[in-house]
Order: sequence, then structure tokens, then C-alpha cells
Amino acid sequence: MSTSIFYHAGCPVCVSAEHEIIELIGADNLEIIHLGEDKSRIVEAENTGVKSVPALVTPSGHVLHINFGASIAEVRG
Amino acid sequence: MSTSIFYHAGCPVCVSAEHEIIELIGADNLEIIHLGEDKSRIVEAENTGVKSVPALVTPSGHVLHINFGASIAEVRG
Repeated sequence: MSTSIFYHAGCPVCVSAEHEIIELIGADNLEIIHLGEDKSRIVEAENTGVKSVPALVTPSGHVLHINFGASIAEVRG
Repeated sequence: MSTSIFYHAGCPVCVSAEHEIIELIGADNLEIIHLGEDKSRIVEAENTGVKSVPALVTPSGHVLHINFGASIAEVRG
């Protein structure tokens, strides 16, 4: 399986979703990016279509927004 | 891996998400419920915490609302 990217910002909703996604698809299949700590990745996330976190970008490039923790604007601060 | 339940209502957002989820976790690990065609499952979904479709209920019982297709009220019609 190719790697998906899980974007989050450390919020409680994000942490809960991260736990579930790791259970479902396995940590080995995930790159996990904390946009609050690594703001240089925000533009990349936005360009992929990420509008809020937590979000999972699949190997085929589709964005799955999972529940709602924070908007990208809130993450940018 | 235990089975997750994917609730949807046939909407375009649902179909797209279903495709991605099958790619990620495998059809064998999924029970797929079309709430528009099987309205008897709506109450079960609501009781689990599903507020909109598409949604994935994980083996541990957590609800992941994925993107947004329709509210449960809209599905009920």
C-alpha cells in the first residue's frame, strides 16, 4: 500500500482521529504532519485541497476531511 | 482487522469517499450501508453518533465523519 498523509494540528479531534486512522490503515502506511509545528507544510496541504484538520490525503491524492478540528486559517494563526 | 461500517446515501461525495475507504482499508474489512435504501438502519447509525454521511464507524465504535454529503435529517427525508 502506498503512503497516505495525515495532516493535523494537535487538537483533541485530531489526536482522536489520528489514533483511529493508525488503527485502520497502519502507521507504516502514514506520513503524519503536525501543521502547527511545521508551518512550512501548510501551503502544500492547501494546494492538495486540505481545508481543515484533521485530514487524510490518500495515495491517489484525494482529500478526506475527517470530523472537524480546525480550519487551515486557524492553524496558520 | 475487525469490520468497520461505512454509512452513505449514494451522493457523489459518498461514492468518492467509499472508493477511497475501500482502497485504504479493503472491502473485506467493511460493511457498507446505504441509508437511503435501508432506512431501518438510520436509528442505529444515529445511536452510534453518525450525524452526516459519508461516515465510517471504526471497530472501536468511533465515528469518523468524512467530508460532507448530507445530514442524517436529509437522508431521512
